[in-house]
Amino acid sequence: MAAQCAASAVVSRVAAPRPAKALKAAGAAPVRSATHRARRVGGRGVIRATGAPKDEDVVRAPRPEYIPNKIDDLNYVRVFDTTLRDGEQSPGATLTSKEKLDIARNLAKLGVDIIEAGFPIASPDDLEAVRNIAKNVGNEVYPDGYVPVICGLSRANKKDIDAAWEGVRHAKRPRIHTFIATSKIHMESKLRKTPDEVVQIAVDGVTYARSLGCEDVEFSPEDAGRSDPEFLYRILAAVVEAGATTLNIPDTVGICLPEEFGALIAGIKANVPGQYIISTHCQNDLGLSTANSLAGVANGARQVECTINGIGERAGNASLEEVAMSIWMRGQEKIFGARTGINPVYIYPCSKMVREYSGMAVQPHKAIVGANAFAHESGIHQDGMLKNKLTYEIIAPETIGYFRGEGDVGVVMGKHSGRHALKSKLKQLGFPLEGDELNEMFDRFKLVAEQKTGGVGDDEIIALVTSGAGQGDDTAVTWKLDEVQVVCGTMGLPTATVKMTGPDAVTRINSAVGTGPVDAAYKAIDGLCRVKVDLVEYTVNAVVEGIESLAQTRVSIRAKSDQTMPGAMMKANVQTGNVEARTFMATGADSDIVVSSARAYVAALNRMISFMRSNAETVAAEAVIDIVAEEEEKKAAAA
Amino acid sequence: MAAQCAASAVVSRVAAPRPAKALKAAGAAPVRSATHRARRVGGRGVIRATGAPKDEDVVRAPRPEYIPNKIDDLNYVRVFDTTLRDGEQSPGATLTSKEKLDIARNLAKLGVDIIEAGFPIASPDDLEAVRNIAKNVGNEVYPDGYVPVICGLSRANKKDIDAAWEGVRHAKRPRIHTFIATSKIHMESKLRKTPDEVVQIAVDGVTYARSLGCEDVEFSPEDAGRSDPEFLYRILAAVVEAGATTLNIPDTVGICLPEEFGALIAGIKANVPGQYIISTHCQNDLGLSTANSLAGVANGARQVECTINGIGERAGNASLEEVAMSIWMRGQEKIFGARTGINPVYIYPCSKMVREYSGMAVQPHKAIVGANAFAHESGIHQDGMLKNKLTYEIIAPETIGYFRGEGDVGVVMGKHSGRHALKSKLKQLGFPLEGDELNEMFDRFKLVAEQKTGGVGDDEIIALVTSGAGQGDDTAVTWKLDEVQVVCGTMGLPTATVKMTGPDAVTRINSAVGTGPVDAAYKAIDGLCRVKVDLVEYTVNAVVEGIESLAQTRVSIRAKSDQTMPGAMMKANVQTGNVEARTFMATGADSDIVVSSARAYVAALNRMISFMRSNAETVAAEAVIDIVAEEEEKKAAAA
Repeated sequence: MAAQCAASAVVSRVAAPRPAKALKAAGAAPVRSATHRARRVGGRGVIRATGAPKDEDVVRAPRPEYIPNKIDDLNYVRVFDTTLRDGEQSPGATLTSKEKLDIARNLAKLGVDIIEAGFPIASPDDLEAVRNIAKNVGNEVYPDGYVPVICGLSRANKKDIDAAWEGVRHAKRPRIHTFIATSKIHMESKLRKTPDEVVQIAVDGVTYARSLGCEDVEFSPEDAGRSDPEFLYRILAAVVEAGATTLNIPDTVGICLPEEFGALIAGIKANVPGQYIISTHCQNDLGLSTANSLAGVANGARQVECTINGIGERAGNASLEEVAMSIWMRGQEKIFGARTGINPVYIYPCSKMVREYSGMAVQPHKAIVGANAFAHESGIHQDGMLKNKLTYEIIAPETIGYFRGEGDVGVVMGKHSGRHALKSKLKQLGFPLEGDELNEMFDRFKLVAEQKTGGVGDDEIIALVTSGAGQGDDTAVTWKLDEVQVVCGTMGLPTATVKMTGPDAVTRINSAVGTGPVDAAYKAIDGLCRVKVDLVEYTVNAVVEGIESLAQTRVSIRAKSDQTMPGAMMKANVQTGNVEARTFMATGADSDIVVSSARAYVAALNRMISFMRSNAETVAAEAVIDIVAEEEEKKAAAA
Repeated sequence: MAAQCAASAVVSRVAAPRPAKALKAAGAAPVRSATHRARRVGGRGVIRATGAPKDEDVVRAPRPEYIPNKIDDLNYVRVFDTTLRDGEQSPGATLTSKEKLDIARNLAKLGVDIIEAGFPIASPDDLEAVRNIAKNVGNEVYPDGYVPVICGLSRANKKDIDAAWEGVRHAKRPRIHTFIATSKIHMESKLRKTPDEVVQIAVDGVTYARSLGCEDVEFSPEDAGRSDPEFLYRILAAVVEAGATTLNIPDTVGICLPEEFGALIAGIKANVPGQYIISTHCQNDLGLSTANSLAGVANGARQVECTINGIGERAGNASLEEVAMSIWMRGQEKIFGARTGINPVYIYPCSKMVREYSGMAVQPHKAIVGANAFAHESGIHQDGMLKNKLTYEIIAPETIGYFRGEGDVGVVMGKHSGRHALKSKLKQLGFPLEGDELNEMFDRFKLVAEQKTGGVGDDEIIALVTSGAGQGDDTAVTWKLDEVQVVCGTMGLPTATVKMTGPDAVTRINSAVGTGPVDAAYKAIDGLCRVKVDLVEYTVNAVVEGIESLAQTRVSIRAKSDQTMPGAMMKANVQTGNVEARTFMATGADSDIVVSSARAYVAALNRMISFMRSNAETVAAEAVIDIVAEEEEKKAAAA
């Protein structure tokens, strides 16, 4: 409804001319007819009839020049991706620095305007990851002049802001994002500060960030959805005065209804003076985050914060793919010409990578990227009646980079495929491997290819590349699994024997009995590695249909909770103040589930061991100490 | 905004008095403060501080007398659950008649107003399931007079409608739901009929349904979201004239934005004369189904169609839990007093059962029912700072029947727990087992309990009860797995030996070599059962944390596609016209993943075999033939 009210006030934009060859695109036709004016809305990525598009072929979405506090295009909506920060805060989601870099590279291909790379104060790992992304992705300028803004989160205090700046300053376009809670309940029970104190802290934080030389500063009043609008106008006006260029409005607990959230944005636009961009940040607790983000845009927001696959704490955040495709499909027609710089053809590859790396599953009926979203595409038993796909399909799979079937996967890999073919296939799938990583991957690929009659599918290749050390983890392997052998069943005691080579290059053998083959194998491995861990998660999936399919095992472990845990082993959510044991996830892929299980477990152990080494004494530890200290302080104050 | 516009026109309802003891409820406090007036909105289910509520304790939400075409309460919104029809149409989702009955019983506890039990013409299995539910759940009247309406779907032709009526007529409150597509694209490319023909077919269908003596008839103009509103007004007025009591407006392809869908509903309310209830049916292709359903309610719809966990084809349907809890949380305050008859405390048990039975996974960050929705509840490493849960939690887990921790699960089951304790625990978890089913379950429970030190958790008990023959399947076991033994690992050829007793009561032994232990075991089993199948899906999950956890294996198989498949083995989606091979899913639970894998496989095989027996020649076959015939006919017509 907001769109209707506002529409009259806004001059509908003349659509940007669309590259001629895009009209021939496989994806274009369905979209075009699905919504009469969609041609003018989207279809900016060139879609090839079959095979994933070559990067150089993709005509990138045009976007206005980047100026922090203004956009010279009434209809352009910036996409701010926080998969690496808010998404990574999901319980159990763990990403290594190398994985974060891979994802950031894919986000740049996708064309997000801002990448929130992390929360630098949270741990040296976070800081390193942000710095790494700023130095690399933050300096890789595309031919059209596009380079993503690299952003780091910080509470509104000097130490946090210094860490954030240290993380992002090497980027061509660095941004500091600072926040403080503004709802009554947060100010009273969490911060234990008065509204006046909160305003002062916010202003000081923004002023300090600007004083470091950062000209792009975003401020968020946490829990804005439950804050008093009048107080919001006051604190927001104050931070704009202090130099904030983007005002992000989070519905932190996901309680707002669309019209309610839209009204909040309209109110801010009407009551906060100055030059700034309004941003939305909607949690999904009631399943309304996508609708709320769109309501925000309809009421004047020109930045939307989202995550790939909608991951995040609790019910997660607005899904980038849902928000972006809603605008792509309907923006021109229904949200007075709204458009983004997203290149949809990279949505699926990004989704797939985030799924694999984070270990956060996506349900089959997830909108846009779920396995069933295009299940009627699979064809085998497709009914001949529906010659016209559009009767039930509004987005062609190719449009979001989802390619299926012989025609689509392009080269099918098999036992005769060479190293070069594998390399380019991996690049196409979003995993640009080089040198030793490539060689090691090639060896594992060969082993599998020789066992399989039907060739190795794309999904199996992704399972292999993300398996164990192949998961783009740059930490040295501490323990190597040479052999594993198991006897099990209903008739006897499941027994496993493992042969492993340790950090000391000595090879040892150990056997153990367990309640099952995996339990036995893990106990045998534990006997050699001598690290006390709890198994947090264990899953096995057949990667493709058919009994010959590769089995992918995913395990997640944490240091045994009965040990007093060093700060470095804790993952502090500096925003909520929650502290949880850091988990270490790894996957293994093999045609033998016991072998893939053992591989995954050893890979996870190696991750944990090398992390323990490199983070003996850390900022994370301090962060935890901070939290405890602050708590004491407040208890004292409260008493 | 629609809510605002409409609000003035509607007298805000005086909240129903709430049972005094509910105020002491654990769930009440958080909700109460999360939104100031929530106390008056919801909290109708009594929440006990610990332990799942006893059914008899739950004060059911008050609801107006049931009259098909009107509701004597301006604010009451009917909840129409189509998990068993639209949900079951999801690719790969398979429910046996017995499972459908279990789910229907839980839906009645949940308090849904209408249960769409299936699509009777689709297969004798569907018809039997609907009849079964109509005869049982459709006649179980609760003390407050509540009994769910039982509904069956049908295309607008006599054969479909006869089947639907045959399915539902035994219910106290039977409803026939008939539909035909009204969008230009559907009428032209799918139906190949003129608008006038379509109106006539719709009117004839509704008239015929009424002529059978059914006084509760729902009509749906398929793809209404893309239909010409003027044409909708015309066909809807005609079917109301013919006796339709509910007008369901489906956004079949999930393309509408909330304000757009709200406007569509408002237009129908304003332009279609007569006495009827408007209903919403929103698909989730853009992630907007919940928001669209609420926009519909805000604009006059008084029935919402949803599914548990939002399952359904492609991106699924509006999630019952999201729509119901949004109304429960905000209806009073923001949707001018809207309320439903849902008893939230049964949401989680229903979600869990649908997940287990359908095999449709729910992602950890799914709103309301995802594993992470309350992950910060798990407590272990909960930061002491957040004394006030409400800083980040808007719905208390107990409110939706999600109980955690020693205090919550009530009696912890262990090796000393007796048959009676298990029986009541099972009832509490929504699996009321009796006689042989209970005995068989008790034996399996004992085996596991003796291996485990820490007692057996609720989730493990659910895994056991849904395992293999325990999955409430009433088909006789054809093959019994007596023993399985496996040798595998990196060093040799994985080899499995199985000992099985066949339908002829003869025990046989077979060995096989495979690419892994599961492959080997399955090949050994195939050698004895001699049924040609494809493995469609294979997953293993640790049921709870910890290496000693029970492993749950889920397999889904279908008859080998290289055989010409009898009609009965096909699953025809009579709506879309798609035909896919029927899949058979089963789970197995054991501490040994090879054993649980073998159990699950044998259970799935038994299902398929007994289904093949009981459905040699069937309506499904005819349905498939119909579709092909109609197609030929149309081809001819088109030529």
